[in-house]
Amino acid sequence: MVKQVKVHAPATVANMVCGFDILGFALEAPYDEMVLRLIDEPIIRIINKDDYNLPTNPPDNVAGAALLALMDELDGKVGFEVEIKKKIKPGSGIGSSAASAAGAVVGANYLLGNRFSSDDLVRFAMCGEKVASGVKHADNITPCILGGVTLIRSIFPLDVVQLSSPALHVTVVHPQIEVKTENARKILKHQVELKDAIKQWGNVAGLVAGLLKKDYDLLGRSLEDVIIEPIRSILIPGFDEVKTRCKEVGALGGGISGSGPSIFMLSKDEATALKVETVMAEVFTRLGIDYHTYVTAINNSGVKVFEE
Amino acid sequence: MVKQVKVHAPATVANMVCGFDILGFALEAPYDEMVLRLIDEPIIRIINKDDYNLPTNPPDNVAGAALLALMDELDGKVGFEVEIKKKIKPGSGIGSSAASAAGAVVGANYLLGNRFSSDDLVRFAMCGEKVASGVKHADNITPCILGGVTLIRSIFPLDVVQLSSPALHVTVVHPQIEVKTENARKILKHQVELKDAIKQWGNVAGLVAGLLKKDYDLLGRSLEDVIIEPIRSILIPGFDEVKTRCKEVGALGGGISGSGPSIFMLSKDEATALKVETVMAEVFTRLGIDYHTYVTAINNSGVKVFEE
Repeated sequence: MVKQVKVHAPATVANMVCGFDILGFALEAPYDEMVLRLIDEPIIRIINKDDYNLPTNPPDNVAGAALLALMDELDGKVGFEVEIKKKIKPGSGIGSSAASAAGAVVGANYLLGNRFSSDDLVRFAMCGEKVASGVKHADNITPCILGGVTLIRSIFPLDVVQLSSPALHVTVVHPQIEVKTENARKILKHQVELKDAIKQWGNVAGLVAGLLKKDYDLLGRSLEDVIIEPIRSILIPGFDEVKTRCKEVGALGGGISGSGPSIFMLSKDEATALKVETVMAEVFTRLGIDYHTYVTAINNSGVKVFEE
Repeated sequence: MVKQVKVHAPATVANMVCGFDILGFALEAPYDEMVLRLIDEPIIRIINKDDYNLPTNPPDNVAGAALLALMDELDGKVGFEVEIKKKIKPGSGIGSSAASAAGAVVGANYLLGNRFSSDDLVRFAMCGEKVASGVKHADNITPCILGGVTLIRSIFPLDVVQLSSPALHVTVVHPQIEVKTENARKILKHQVELKDAIKQWGNVAGLVAGLLKKDYDLLGRSLEDVIIEPIRSILIPGFDEVKTRCKEVGALGGGISGSGPSIFMLSKDEATALKVETVMAEVFTRLGIDYHTYVTAINNSGVKVFEE
């Protein structure tokens, strides 16, 4: 029986512009590195292998809370030791907490002979997200676990749909400013205009159709958010310029990753994705804001588990 | 050169439950029968071959207004004589006015050697819809012209997407009560809760994915409208009972056709569609409301033109 696994838990982009709270996709890079060990005591031990000083008390730790939810459905005879080396910076808006939660439960499930379904794993990992942001959301966890582009048609009851997509290159810029998920959620209006909602679900329908039909133009035209982005983008200096200029150099479109501050752009080919990176770097350099960029692609496999 | 054509312009279902103002599909039956003749004068002559006493003054007639819009983009040397035999009852909520408008412009375009694109035809036919309901909407016209299930991602500028679908049987009941499109629109709230809008676009995404992936279960689960139906269904006696009981006998789901009063239900096979018809008949018989039912299927070709 395998007692220890290494796990790569990828970064993810939630919302995908118009698909607020329902769409998300996984990235090839960056990813967190984790080691999970099955132990003979019903406890969780968290070992941080990075400098983020994240809490190690299991109920306060995202991976710990997710594992506690999983252990609630076990017989109480085993536990887990988890080493976490975070490569996805907390607060970057590309699913850092989801990677910890999803990586932990996928790794644990592997050690248990894959007894839980992916829906179960999403459910457990959501308990980790609750520790991070106060809300049990699944739009990062689902693509992190399943890979590719995922749709959460309904969260209670959970109804997850995997959406195929054409090859997509992704450029992400993480400006080193702080946007708390909690605050990004607070500034949203509880009510929206029906006419805007209709535009939004027209775009959501276009985006899903563009993905499944592998129609890049339709996909690009549909990457428009008339409800959330106009409010949240105010929190991200340079947002409008980045978006306009990236589209000028050939990006299909993009927007805020999750609740920000990272911005992502989709491109049809890597050459364009690299041009987009240059534009992003220029804007934030001129604004005098430190930033980090990633040029990567959609990851179709989700969390990867390796026997050690 | 062909001088006369016969046209079959099908009934259509707009909205498709969660897809308010963006989705619609064409039906195999009923359809309007029209005859169009190219004439050497730049005028329009409307001849009604039914008992509905619809206006014959071209700007006041749905087909006439659509043809006037088309003729605005011609050289002013030809016109059209149109005989209309309406089989789709006006006010039934299955796109009676759209059929007249779409049938007229598709037939006229055929006589002109198909010089206009389908986007042009949608644009012309929308001028007919404006005469009928005061609003330039395209959610019946588009499936009527193109056939199948259509998505209007955006209306200004027009962006229409055809969506493939699995075989679907459709049962429609038209209770003989009056619901004016104008009034059905007036009772809607201008503002909606963001949380409801998110549910709705989750369902829209699920419905589009269900259609394209030919996943009947997903399609059925996604046929849920938390925004429009709770308000509009109040205008249709028996609505909730019809819906519940049709699903009990196996319908995938359904709802109000357009702005009502017709109700449609989708089924995987004809046997279920016939059971659904029985249920619909029982409910309206018991309520003492006259009704008419159709058991039909999605029509994938749209308006049909025959040379005479």
